[in-house]
Amino acid sequence: MSGIEDFHAVIPAGGSGTRLWPLSRTGRPKFLVDVLGTGRSLLQGTVDRLLPLTGPDRILVVTGQAHRDEVVRQLPELDGSGTEGAAEQVLAEPSPRDSMAAIGLAAAVLAQRHGPSTVLGSFAADHVIAGQDVFERTVTEAVAAARVGYLVTVGIKATGPSTAFGYVAAGDDLGVAGAPSARHVTGFTEKPDADTAWTYLATGRYSWNAGMFVASAGVLLDHLHTQLPALHDGLREIAALWDTPGRAAALETVWPTLTRIAIDHAIAEPVAATGGVAVVPGGFDWDDIGDFESLATLLGAGDPDGPGGEPPRSATLGDDALVLRLDAPDAFVVTGDRAVTVVGLDEAVVVDTPDALLVTTRAHAQQVKNAVDAWRERGATRLL
Amino acid sequence: MSGIEDFHAVIPAGGSGTRLWPLSRTGRPKFLVDVLGTGRSLLQGTVDRLLPLTGPDRILVVTGQAHRDEVVRQLPELDGSGTEGAAEQVLAEPSPRDSMAAIGLAAAVLAQRHGPSTVLGSFAADHVIAGQDVFERTVTEAVAAARVGYLVTVGIKATGPSTAFGYVAAGDDLGVAGAPSARHVTGFTEKPDADTAWTYLATGRYSWNAGMFVASAGVLLDHLHTQLPALHDGLREIAALWDTPGRAAALETVWPTLTRIAIDHAIAEPVAATGGVAVVPGGFDWDDIGDFESLATLLGAGDPDGPGGEPPRSATLGDDALVLRLDAPDAFVVTGDRAVTVVGLDEAVVVDTPDALLVTTRAHAQQVKNAVDAWRERGATRLL
Repeated sequence: MSGIEDFHAVIPAGGSGTRLWPLSRTGRPKFLVDVLGTGRSLLQGTVDRLLPLTGPDRILVVTGQAHRDEVVRQLPELDGSGTEGAAEQVLAEPSPRDSMAAIGLAAAVLAQRHGPSTVLGSFAADHVIAGQDVFERTVTEAVAAARVGYLVTVGIKATGPSTAFGYVAAGDDLGVAGAPSARHVTGFTEKPDADTAWTYLATGRYSWNAGMFVASAGVLLDHLHTQLPALHDGLREIAALWDTPGRAAALETVWPTLTRIAIDHAIAEPVAATGGVAVVPGGFDWDDIGDFESLATLLGAGDPDGPGGEPPRSATLGDDALVLRLDAPDAFVVTGDRAVTVVGLDEAVVVDTPDALLVTTRAHAQQVKNAVDAWRERGATRLL
Repeated sequence: MSGIEDFHAVIPAGGSGTRLWPLSRTGRPKFLVDVLGTGRSLLQGTVDRLLPLTGPDRILVVTGQAHRDEVVRQLPELDGSGTEGAAEQVLAEPSPRDSMAAIGLAAAVLAQRHGPSTVLGSFAADHVIAGQDVFERTVTEAVAAARVGYLVTVGIKATGPSTAFGYVAAGDDLGVAGAPSARHVTGFTEKPDADTAWTYLATGRYSWNAGMFVASAGVLLDHLHTQLPALHDGLREIAALWDTPGRAAALETVWPTLTRIAIDHAIAEPVAATGGVAVVPGGFDWDDIGDFESLATLLGAGDPDGPGGEPPRSATLGDDALVLRLDAPDAFVVTGDRAVTVVGLDEAVVVDTPDALLVTTRAHAQQVKNAVDAWRERGATRLL
């Protein structure tokens, strides 16, 4: 048994990533794509990062039925050398019911299989983290705090006044053995406006909410039982039958009735109000690669032309030998199998795929999802 | 015999059109491409326009050896129902020697075949003309002036103070029967600066030099003999052997020695100085499709969104159903077989071909040739 004893990683692998279209598609969303050009998809990168903490047996992926086979194919590590076989480590949802149902299902299945004291940590399938050592130390502290009954979140050190993320407000030290940097959470906030974000940054008390939660299965389910008893009971009912022939019937009858709600709203916020949530600060680099501006900045981090303090502006995902920039030094290009020439465009984004080409600018990265909507309205489902 | 009696059209089909890259390539230059989306290449359009004036037998195309087979394939009209077979209507140059050698070769071959009094008109293979009736009347007048010994040019009515073209300055009426609008040419000018172009426009005496020349073969060759005797003699030597087994040997030994010079500099300018050049004003619409800005304007002419008096700004060459513009109403897109999405770019130009993609703006249309140079420097000859 390697890693942290009796600790399971849960990876909710959902979301379509439409702002990374056409790199990300409905049938092949962001987490299944090698958007960093490392040779590993974001999901594979997430598993690589968690394996030292859990070993191959204690990872559960919760994904949509449509992506189940590809998830299994991408993760041969989960081949069932332990108690669960690969099939039992990839939980397929018949339909998306948001993050509380996905993580709650995993918690209920783990409680069923291993008892309520087993600790789980939930980590998105499509985020990027650099700094493995710091990440492991952070999770280890979070598990220690979870073992004494806290719902623990990992707060990402804010490197700027971002308006793209929610924030976690930290209060007093938790004072738990094995979790020296853990603090009480006084509250969660939605994405702030710019002035508020500057205020948060100035206090030093706020960190970014990256949606990572660590708790014992029993504590998490108890909170859910208090806040949303019907959702709790439904998930428990499905979990009781998960490893039996009754699973399919339970999913068919119960799953469609489950409340769609994010884990933040379902339990993190109300439990924080009563002092039950802790935060462990995560000093590692983190990014949720929300759009092409974010991806370009991440990939361009090694750009020697980027002046100090400014985000680097030029990047290629794919084969840079296929790209020619003339009077367009800041172009971000995702190459396919063709030569791409960009002439005289400032901050261009060009994404070349076999059936769809996107041309935009970094400033318009957020609008890419509107293009996906527009193609859908035109009935071009093959492009989505 | 249809058209104008004893009148031959000569079509110099050369030039690479690098400012229309990657639509136009070294191996498939602009004149071989259907850049207007009409189903006909520019060369085919040129032949279509000339056939009413000449019939299929009296058209000669002068092109590079590399393009000869494709020219013959595109022009089944020239299949030799008359005196010349298709092969004899497409003259292949072993290497490019500029327009005087190309047109002079055609003149010398026509003089050899039909005598010096036969009249020829030279029309570029890659220009666009609208207004067939006016075009035919203009050429008919030019032929009448050519029969009495003038080297005749067709002057395009200047619709604005263009700095992209040379100008022809008109003097007194010519007073030749059958050519009522013909005037003496007092001179040719290079492309002017903007102030000078405005002056030209104000006088009403200047028209654009579209490089169309009409003359009898004998007059043209006599002028050439006076101005460049060695070039004249070389072309005569090749022409004498053209329709014999000696052609190849003559081309091999003589062609490489021929002076490279444009017909304007070689004869039009010096002969104008001594009163031997006439101009017939051409009131038809004309465009040389110099770059994507020019092509986009031409293709967008039917755009109902273009405000009156302003050049229309949105156009598609290809399948408009493949194009999505979001916050990019002025984008010009050349489609291939993929969906093209343009988001938030002003005046974008996107050219999608199977092996090369170009992204630029209409304002940078002239710089496209620099991209071709840059790919050449990188050794990417397959893209040129």
